[in-house]
Amino acid sequence: MTREELFKNILRKQSFLCVGLDTDIKKIPSMLCEHCSDEDAILSFNKTIIDATADYAVAFKPNLAFYEALGPKGLEVFERTIRYIQERYPDQFIIADAKRGDIGNTSKMYAKAFFEYYNIDAITVAPYMGEDSVKPFFGYPDKWVILLALTSNEGSEDFQLMENFDVERLYEVVLQTAQKWASIEELMFVIGATQASELTNIRKIVPNHFLLVPGVGAQGGSLEEVSKFGMNDQCGLLVNSSRQILYASRGEDFAEAARETAKQLQTRMEKQLFHKGLITYF
Amino acid sequence: MTREELFKNILRKQSFLCVGLDTDIKKIPSMLCEHCSDEDAILSFNKTIIDATADYAVAFKPNLAFYEALGPKGLEVFERTIRYIQERYPDQFIIADAKRGDIGNTSKMYAKAFFEYYNIDAITVAPYMGEDSVKPFFGYPDKWVILLALTSNEGSEDFQLMENFDVERLYEVVLQTAQKWASIEELMFVIGATQASELTNIRKIVPNHFLLVPGVGAQGGSLEEVSKFGMNDQCGLLVNSSRQILYASRGEDFAEAARETAKQLQTRMEKQLFHKGLITYF
Repeated sequence: MTREELFKNILRKQSFLCVGLDTDIKKIPSMLCEHCSDEDAILSFNKTIIDATADYAVAFKPNLAFYEALGPKGLEVFERTIRYIQERYPDQFIIADAKRGDIGNTSKMYAKAFFEYYNIDAITVAPYMGEDSVKPFFGYPDKWVILLALTSNEGSEDFQLMENFDVERLYEVVLQTAQKWASIEELMFVIGATQASELTNIRKIVPNHFLLVPGVGAQGGSLEEVSKFGMNDQCGLLVNSSRQILYASRGEDFAEAARETAKQLQTRMEKQLFHKGLITYF
Repeated sequence: MTREELFKNILRKQSFLCVGLDTDIKKIPSMLCEHCSDEDAILSFNKTIIDATADYAVAFKPNLAFYEALGPKGLEVFERTIRYIQERYPDQFIIADAKRGDIGNTSKMYAKAFFEYYNIDAITVAPYMGEDSVKPFFGYPDKWVILLALTSNEGSEDFQLMENFDVERLYEVVLQTAQKWASIEELMFVIGATQASELTNIRKIVPNHFLLVPGVGAQGGSLEEVSKFGMNDQCGLLVNSSRQILYASRGEDFAEAARETAKQLQTRMEKQLFHKGLITYF
């Protein structure tokens, strides 16, 4: 998906919501698919959540760890989830939250996995190994790298926010360096919602890039603050919510509860798009 | 596997060789398993390489990217490769070269995947997201985190070797910080063989940790230099070779060629162990 198509979807749906599919078998309603395997239960849950929230979201982000934990069969569930979205909701932007990154010939194989085999729109990549570990992901038309910059967790203080640089902090160097590697048409950054106070600074360094923002909801980030300091004139934000939507209810009404939560988030996003002047009514 | 067991295996085999299983379907001999699927060809190749080199190695390191590129079926090949080593060669240390690392609840699922589902000895982890992204991998008895510190690729200059710290470079901070997270019984570091000139400095910071050293062979690192500056009194080194062994020959003699290459590396390692006084004959 191109940047322009993504922006159009955001305007059309008045939403920049990304639904994270971090599906944990231990947390899904037990009445769902009682006599079937864990894998079938997860797939059934995913499909229900996707159907329930697709109206209010522009992106889905399955988290690889939750599928890998089940072995090769978990990867089949991942693939069937992807295929379901691709067939039913071809306008949804799909992000593989995989945090990959390795030496060149290995990153090339990861790119092949996610951009060729699964044909996913974007993959999250870790920057620690530098340019030649990230570059093999570029050059696929309409495919995206989403590079970790400033993440939502406490551990972001260990290295990303280290202050003993002469001039800047590590995540700022990552932003400055990585934007030279590819255009804004194929590179986004991960900025945690809990880091909203840094967004003014971040927007000085990368004014035009899209940012994938996890950490609203369970992790405590504020959608309104993220929007206030992070939105640009092409929106430039995909705000992710996983647990808040997936486990909105543990009961039989989990799909309606997920839909309602997604809808509430969409309404708050619509308001922010209106405030920014990107849509003319609210 | 405990540190003591690993050291005993090194002394018994007079080798600290790790064979990397970065198996690329495009590079394996075409006469191997001509009428079977790509997956079966890779599995057959892996088994043959494992049988051919196990005498000279103490560890195997499959690289996840090469299996993920084939989708869920590739992960089945990965699993069957692992099971083959576990059943036939239970004294081999198995490393999942996966470069994972994410927020706590996600890292926990990756730990579950590699330490519980696959029951592998060690996993490579990226440090960028800090302590709470690495900690969920600790606490599994006899299981190891191998944390990226100073990698073998050119991109290591982008961030790891950045010199605009007041006192030290990023990878040094990673070494200093991460050694507080766990004992030397469950934490190793990745140090690229191409970075041998840094090893004296590295051993000042982490004198006792095991180091996983890729980059000998195709990437140009020197086994002798790595040993000279990196070996400690419990060896403290696992030196990996992938392409040099796997593709020693593209002909029918690929297994003998792989075995011969592994044997030559083992002989050079034996010499280094002797120089260090860890074995008394050569």
